[in-house]
Amino acid sequence: MTEVESSERLVHVPLGDRAYDILIGRGLIARAGGEISTRIKGRKAAIITDEHVGPLYLDALMDSLQTDGIEAVSLSLPAGEKTKSFEHLMRVCDVLLEARIERNDAVIALGGGVIGDLTGFAAGIVRRGVRFVQIPTSLLAQVDSSVGGKTGINTRQGKNLVGVFYQPDLVLADTAVLSSLSKREFRAGYAEVVKYGLIDKPDFFEWLERNWEGVFAGGEARAEAIATSCRAKAEVVAADERELGRRALLNLGHTFGHALEAATGYDSKRLVHGEGVAIGMVLAHQFSARLNLASPDDAERVAAHLKAVGLPMAMGDIEGELPPTDILMEAIAQDKKVKGGKLTFILTHGIGQSFVADDVAASEVFSFLQEKHPG
Amino acid sequence: MTEVESSERLVHVPLGDRAYDILIGRGLIARAGGEISTRIKGRKAAIITDEHVGPLYLDALMDSLQTDGIEAVSLSLPAGEKTKSFEHLMRVCDVLLEARIERNDAVIALGGGVIGDLTGFAAGIVRRGVRFVQIPTSLLAQVDSSVGGKTGINTRQGKNLVGVFYQPDLVLADTAVLSSLSKREFRAGYAEVVKYGLIDKPDFFEWLERNWEGVFAGGEARAEAIATSCRAKAEVVAADERELGRRALLNLGHTFGHALEAATGYDSKRLVHGEGVAIGMVLAHQFSARLNLASPDDAERVAAHLKAVGLPMAMGDIEGELPPTDILMEAIAQDKKVKGGKLTFILTHGIGQSFVADDVAASEVFSFLQEKHPG
Ligand SMILES: NC(=O)c1ccc[n+]([C@@H]2O[C@H](COP(=O)([O-])OP(=O)(O)OC[C@H]3O[C@@H](n4cnc5c(N)ncnc54)[C@H](O)[C@@H]3O)[C@@H](O)[C@H]2O)c1
Ligand SMILES: NC(=O)c1ccc[n+]([C@@H]2O[C@H](COP(=O)([O-])OP(=O)(O)OC[C@H]3O[C@@H](n4cnc5c(N)ncnc54)[C@H](O)[C@@H]3O)[C@@H](O)[C@H]2O)c1
Ligand SMILES: [Zn+2]
Ligand SMILES: [Zn+2]
Repeated sequence: MTEVESSERLVHVPLGDRAYDILIGRGLIARAGGEISTRIKGRKAAIITDEHVGPLYLDALMDSLQTDGIEAVSLSLPAGEKTKSFEHLMRVCDVLLEARIERNDAVIALGGGVIGDLTGFAAGIVRRGVRFVQIPTSLLAQVDSSVGGKTGINTRQGKNLVGVFYQPDLVLADTAVLSSLSKREFRAGYAEVVKYGLIDKPDFFEWLERNWEGVFAGGEARAEAIATSCRAKAEVVAADERELGRRALLNLGHTFGHALEAATGYDSKRLVHGEGVAIGMVLAHQFSARLNLASPDDAERVAAHLKAVGLPMAMGDIEGELPPTDILMEAIAQDKKVKGGKLTFILTHGIGQSFVADDVAASEVFSFLQEKHPG
Repeated sequence: MTEVESSERLVHVPLGDRAYDILIGRGLIARAGGEISTRIKGRKAAIITDEHVGPLYLDALMDSLQTDGIEAVSLSLPAGEKTKSFEHLMRVCDVLLEARIERNDAVIALGGGVIGDLTGFAAGIVRRGVRFVQIPTSLLAQVDSSVGGKTGINTRQGKNLVGVFYQPDLVLADTAVLSSLSKREFRAGYAEVVKYGLIDKPDFFEWLERNWEGVFAGGEARAEAIATSCRAKAEVVAADERELGRRALLNLGHTFGHALEAATGYDSKRLVHGEGVAIGMVLAHQFSARLNLASPDDAERVAAHLKAVGLPMAMGDIEGELPPTDILMEAIAQDKKVKGGKLTFILTHGIGQSFVADDVAASEVFSFLQEKHPG
């Protein structure tokens, strides 16, 4: 008990009247009722989860809420990206309204980024906004999707095209639940942790190089890495809540990454998001080196670290054939708007020195990719 | 042309970085392109309208946009409250995404409150928010629904239960289009105009008593009444954008009104919203008199004015049977949460002296209704 509390971390996200706390530590689900009831007036809650996470943690959460006098209903949805749809949004709204969730009651997302994004959207639109609590259970959700207030669903036109900015009232990142996450999902989330170091925290990157085994093992190092990541994202978000400028840095590695996700047909057997980001970050460093902005040694160092933890770090690490360069290029052009042959890209002067460049020649990207392309 | 401009009015809604202008005058649709292109960067637009309004005004709007270099697509939906549904929301989002409407492009609502509420919601969630222009074409939409940023749809649980607060970038209230509105719809909207006088503008109520014929006829008096109404609503909204306190005053007459709408099965042949509000406002004044808060003369004066313009002003004016008092009471309890036998109600000390009372005994409401009940 004492041990649990001593290892707990609090990250405050300073967003004026939308400010909130992120608590990080082991065993937080068992204490959720207490943490929620001191912050939220209503005594009703609805928990949205998925079929992988629900069986593992829903009962513990329900018990904790009940102990603190919060009456809760729950809904378990299919796991996976397809759940971020209008159809499931309607279902969640229906459940919240049937449960008579009011403005001061809590809607709780218990799951990974899929459940968080969908549930946050529903919480933002039912009665034009009810209280919202994130209990992220994947590493990616703990360090990325649960922080920053972006919510949404996918449509046939693309990912995350419909949604709202809606900040939670509380985030509870229970680091113990990550033990049931598959190794591959954990590693994919870890790529986003590395990203924060590469954006503007060279010391954190170095710390990860030395401590990554501890992060993977759990315990102190894991909580520390998650807290540092949340703090990093919170900083960027606080500076640019609605993504008009600086927040773009969070896309480091993502332009190449998204193109690779598209190129592999979003087939998670071949590539999951974090793996695409890992390869994308290496490419961003190599591309910056090619443009004489950074030393090639930095790209090497990034690649070496990702390889050490078991992440892919080059296009050649992806199983199966990749489409030719011009198809990859098309995917990049779709992700970023091309204006007069110029693209906006996150480039770097070296580890921890990323920046937004809005005048990258599409032709440069093309010849770089051609060179790197395994086929 | 000079005449048009001299009679034009501008109401500024002061909401910080969400501030915007409402322009009120004849012929604004023909000038929409110019007004929009000076305020919005994008050069694409999507117009959402309904099958009554589209055939009358869509071409003029498209022409005007084209003249000012804005490329527009349009979608016409069925007229009526049923259109405020998830199904139509999905359809609007799909059209906006297919048209590749981006953050700085405009989504334009051309129609009454139904189209405004639905379109505003879609504009607020597509790409987490794109530019939004209201061109309200019913009197109710010009004086009420297009001001204040409430958007939304209905679900099987009730009206307006899902939506967002989303402020438009511009409102163009073309007073000339009201000439094609049915007399009954015009009168229903007029009830909301009267409401602003009764809330806190006794001079405006007096002005309406003297000038209502001019308002119904069109021209200067109409534009003046609309501008005063917009200003009144904008004031309340600016003081309380997210409806935490004072904004509740806008519900004057609405608790009784909603109960009557429910009691008539939302059958617009028997009662439309504004008619319910008209009767509700008289009841609110009578109830206040019964509680010794206001003089019965004020209730008489309100009833007399509503009668003069052709609005119903008593439950007996509704065609067909009304359900017994306990059923009406149930509808009221559903509209307002009852806490320990107490209701929140908008009461008044007299014309233009409304206030929020949060301790009205349900039993008092019941015996009052019993007395007024025609059956
Ligand atoms: N809102 C944002 O700012 C933001 C940022 C990044 C990503 N995202 C979104 O996040 C989503 C990806 O998130 P994700 O990787 O968490 O995906 P996910 O929610 O699909 O979770 C991945 C898998 O792990 C399972 N899982 C989660 N926690 C578990 C646990 N503790 N034990 C066992 N299994 C567990 C899930 O059931 C799922 O099968 C994408 O939809 C992406 O668009 C959003
Ligand atoms: N957002 C808010 O703050 C707010 C406030 C009040 C009401 N509302 C909503 O507004 C809606 C009611 O608005 P409404 O009364 O405008 O309903 P509406 O949009 O259904 O319009 C009423 C009828 O008039 C027709 N019409 C509109 N303009 C016309 C014109 N110029 N010529 C001919 N026909 C025309 C419409 O096609 C429709 O048949 C309700 O859904 C209500 O919930 C919203
Ligand atoms: Zn990512
Ligand atoms: Zn009304």
